[in-house]
Amino acid sequence: MPSISNKGKSMPQSPIRKLVPFAEAAKKNGTKVFHLNIGQPDIKTPQVALDAVKNNTIEVLSYARSEGSETYREKLANYYANNDILVTANNIIATTGGSEALLFTIGSITDPGDEIIIPEPFYANYNGFSTASGVNVVPVISKIEDNFALPAIEDFEKLITSKTKAILICNPGNPTGYLYSEEEIEKLKQIVLKHDLFLIADEVYREFAYDGEKHNSVMALEGLENHAIMIDSVSKRYSMCGARIGCIVSKNEVFINTAIKFAQARLSPPTYALLASEAALDTPQSYFDDVIEEYEERRNTLISELEKIPGVTVANPKGAFYCVAQLPVENTDDFAQWILESFHHNNETVMVAPASGFYSTEGEGKNQVRIAYVLNKTDLKRSVEILQIALEAYKK
Amino acid sequence: MPSISNKGKSMPQSPIRKLVPFAEAAKKNGTKVFHLNIGQPDIKTPQVALDAVKNNTIEVLSYARSEGSETYREKLANYYANNDILVTANNIIATTGGSEALLFTIGSITDPGDEIIIPEPFYANYNGFSTASGVNVVPVISKIEDNFALPAIEDFEKLITSKTKAILICNPGNPTGYLYSEEEIEKLKQIVLKHDLFLIADEVYREFAYDGEKHNSVMALEGLENHAIMIDSVSKRYSMCGARIGCIVSKNEVFINTAIKFAQARLSPPTYALLASEAALDTPQSYFDDVIEEYEERRNTLISELEKIPGVTVANPKGAFYCVAQLPVENTDDFAQWILESFHHNNETVMVAPASGFYSTEGEGKNQVRIAYVLNKTDLKRSVEILQIALEAYKK
Repeated sequence: MPSISNKGKSMPQSPIRKLVPFAEAAKKNGTKVFHLNIGQPDIKTPQVALDAVKNNTIEVLSYARSEGSETYREKLANYYANNDILVTANNIIATTGGSEALLFTIGSITDPGDEIIIPEPFYANYNGFSTASGVNVVPVISKIEDNFALPAIEDFEKLITSKTKAILICNPGNPTGYLYSEEEIEKLKQIVLKHDLFLIADEVYREFAYDGEKHNSVMALEGLENHAIMIDSVSKRYSMCGARIGCIVSKNEVFINTAIKFAQARLSPPTYALLASEAALDTPQSYFDDVIEEYEERRNTLISELEKIPGVTVANPKGAFYCVAQLPVENTDDFAQWILESFHHNNETVMVAPASGFYSTEGEGKNQVRIAYVLNKTDLKRSVEILQIALEAYKK
Repeated sequence: MPSISNKGKSMPQSPIRKLVPFAEAAKKNGTKVFHLNIGQPDIKTPQVALDAVKNNTIEVLSYARSEGSETYREKLANYYANNDILVTANNIIATTGGSEALLFTIGSITDPGDEIIIPEPFYANYNGFSTASGVNVVPVISKIEDNFALPAIEDFEKLITSKTKAILICNPGNPTGYLYSEEEIEKLKQIVLKHDLFLIADEVYREFAYDGEKHNSVMALEGLENHAIMIDSVSKRYSMCGARIGCIVSKNEVFINTAIKFAQARLSPPTYALLASEAALDTPQSYFDDVIEEYEERRNTLISELEKIPGVTVANPKGAFYCVAQLPVENTDDFAQWILESFHHNNETVMVAPASGFYSTEGEGKNQVRIAYVLNKTDLKRSVEILQIALEAYKK
């Protein structure tokens, strides 16, 4: 039998995926599972986007332009301008999700064996895209005690080698919910300029900033034009995860012209989804106001409920819709499986994401979980109640 | 300024892309351009697929399952069964176009520096996906005199090294239109079994077989279960290029389980497009009968018109909707640019695809072009007339 590649063998599989069969089995046994594990919001997609697809008049479903139409990218540039990000249509490449934006970016700036420094815990799929490109992720640890703030800049400095091509941040962070301050972004600017690195910022949760805090984009920094690369997506902003439309934004022309070659090789982003994404740009501000208010309330509910559980430590997220909690258990991979497999309370249980998948340093985050607050407040409260009862039962 | 990767620098750009600005300039000057250069059919997408999207009731546009829903893959398996390809839903991974199917396949079976043997001329983007994965394409030349039939098996044998992981064919072929015979597929089976290689077949043009000829899938061969990988797509079959839905099909479980990890890292194929693709499986046979009849007539028109031009040699394609023609010019890159930039006949001109982009051997195919018969017969006739007049003018 012909052999699988080493790359294929090393492709990581997230601990969440391993839990899916246990969740399915629980459901088959009549147990209701509250999903705190996923980044799939329950929020309705803007009507204007849904209508654009329902009312489409396409007769031949043709390829879209590889980088997205001029019209779409111009409207998108306009949206960015409203968010203090001054770019033109030529600085933008539409991609099939933020996933593809990352893949093209990594392909354009790294060769096999190169390194990218990422504060951990980080979005698990960064590992997947890096492995697929033969690139090594070099983690720099951020701590729950510090609310997962940016690690000391000396910690980055120590890890930079001739193989280092970029620092990658997620802002606000998945899984931490941490929102980087202007000062932190400024520090990152200084270090990438000093070492001539790219600064890649995954800003797909831009809108989800709470407590009146401001989001600071790497694209807004002067002097960073050739270094800053922004990854974006319509998935979370418009609750359109299934559209699979994202984009790469950068003022570095050489980089954009390289990434376009990757885009051309795969021909085009999905046409129906582009239609929805272009229409979504007309979503009224009231939609976002309602959504942000809802998430802020959910976060408040979730955090205050979690803090009531003895032995639980929880970081206070200022953005996105996740938090990382430390549980009084040794291994959350085991606990998350047990709670699906061997526990229920009044025929209800919860599914959480073990944090081990968000760390690349072996052994880190073993007692942490990521909780997504993508459920309504009543369900969130009930979920935390189930978690508390489960933790008590698990200790015995 | 931080540097671009070597991989990014080597990403090929097809000669067709380089011609686009000249075509745009011609149009701006009021010249009508007949596009013989593209694989975008003018055929209407099946109504059942268009309606499924128009009548969708989605309110939260959620992620689809990474490998595509059970329902979709089961219906797809059923379609394959009707095409003498006996597979189950578990043998199938839905992808974002045939492009992604190839990317995941190459990632699953090759590491940087590995080799894939491909009969040339071949689909230009095979180069792009290989470069993106750090893999070397090893071409084995097929000839216009032989109608681009499978090269002698000894020619493959000579090229096989310890780095060779797979042989990749496109059947029926883009750009050649060649349809491999049962005997040729059998020969490929023997050589991949002998050297324990994968046999990847891009079968996206399966339906487009003319003159009553039968398409022979690598999936139908006994004893090749662990070696055969089929790449497929809805793009051409249902004239749904903009959907971006394809799939990987293989009975090799280890391979499928590896490719699924790549699929999970990018989360999901596009949801609206999956809806259209699932509905498209109910397209009545009459749709295909009409389409195949139309293409067969176009091919007959195109080939007989081309054969009338002095100095033009044309292969006789039995499938897909392309042919490769040899023109009485030295360099078709130059000619294709000239015909857009400096020529028109009654304010009309044509755009053809220089064949150099379909060869990886330097200097091969310099006097060949690919012509796609994706225009109606009247336009095709007029296009060939323009080509003939242009060739006469060019010689002077």
